[in-house]
Amino acid sequence: MRLAALALKNIDYETVAINLTKDGGQQFSGEFQALNPMKQVPALKIDGITIGQSLAIIEYLEETRPTPRLLPWDPKKRAQVRMVSDLIASGIQPLQNLSVLKQVGQENQLTWAQQAITSGFNALEQILQSTAGRYCVGDEVSMADLCLAPQVANADRFKVDLTPYPTISRINKSLLALEAFHVSHPCRQPDTPPELRA
Amino acid sequence: MRLAALALKNIDYETVAINLTKDGGQQFSGEFQALNPMKQVPALKIDGITIGQSLAIIEYLEETRPTPRLLPWDPKKRAQVRMVSDLIASGIQPLQNLSVLKQVGQENQLTWAQQAITSGFNALEQILQSTAGRYCVGDEVSMADLCLAPQVANADRFKVDLTPYPTISRINKSLLALEAFHVSHPCRQPDTPPELRA
Repeated sequence: MRLAALALKNIDYETVAINLTKDGGQQFSGEFQALNPMKQVPALKIDGITIGQSLAIIEYLEETRPTPRLLPWDPKKRAQVRMVSDLIASGIQPLQNLSVLKQVGQENQLTWAQQAITSGFNALEQILQSTAGRYCVGDEVSMADLCLAPQVANADRFKVDLTPYPTISRINKSLLALEAFHVSHPCRQPDTPPELRA
Repeated sequence: MRLAALALKNIDYETVAINLTKDGGQQFSGEFQALNPMKQVPALKIDGITIGQSLAIIEYLEETRPTPRLLPWDPKKRAQVRMVSDLIASGIQPLQNLSVLKQVGQENQLTWAQQAITSGFNALEQILQSTAGRYCVGDEVSMADLCLAPQVANADRFKVDLTPYPTISRINKSLLALEAFHVSHPCRQPDTPPELRA
């Protein structure tokens, strides 16, 4: 999601591909741990500091490179953007990331991930029905959309049926039509394995 | 953590106790779901809107009631505060909350929770060693501290050995000496069961 943020804000960047499964997980290397002790992507080196955690990165970019905005002007709308973002980043994503799925065991992974995503999407669909316009909150792309698109990509990966989530699906479709979301899609990264490319 | 935020900012509030285990979990009631579709505490009704998700609540309070500050003035320090907050709110808390532990099954709960907390605390201790002063980031109480204190209370509950985390332990001790953290401690809430009271 931070790649879309960088793209939307026209910030030049260099990516360092970290293969989460190769060599037992390159995120466990000493070099990457020095950058991000959490042993999870992403980490951004910028302005002489290193920031881990996607939302902290986006909030920093927003405060230091405010144009174009990724948070609305109105505090109540900003609260909605952050509520949707946190719901995804804290309520769904961590429950179906690689290290948790490893712990759950191979035979339970799919059910576990689907359960985490559908339970989160049930709540999200209900919230979005009152906050969404063309995008998650109103008609402007925000941090919430940067969270939504990769989460829907994950739902696809885990074969979650999206029929019960018309608002989520509709917003995701609008997002994928945008250049910044197109270039940052997980299937189009320099380190995407050939079988996942689109 | 939002109770400490309300206390620090001197905002009057009324709490509605939601018992997560009584009646099969009161967070699943129709009334509470209308307030917070995620079926998780907390939700705050304020200024005519309802905000779910702890960090979204604190950011809103900060933007609308800026004194006393819960985010530093310097954008780089703010990034550190948010990184620590997100690490706890996305990287630790969701992995050891009630609904996940239910899924994991009674006999695995303790090991699972301890693993989630120690893995997060290993990263957190390393980050705090470079950001902390008296509190998580420098010498002023921030949103990061509001995340830290309840997470250490959870670590205690799950009998995590805190010896490897001297910085976390030291900060937590400083926090518990503050009135706002004292009144908002999980063991002192109106709905705390008698056996957990202190």
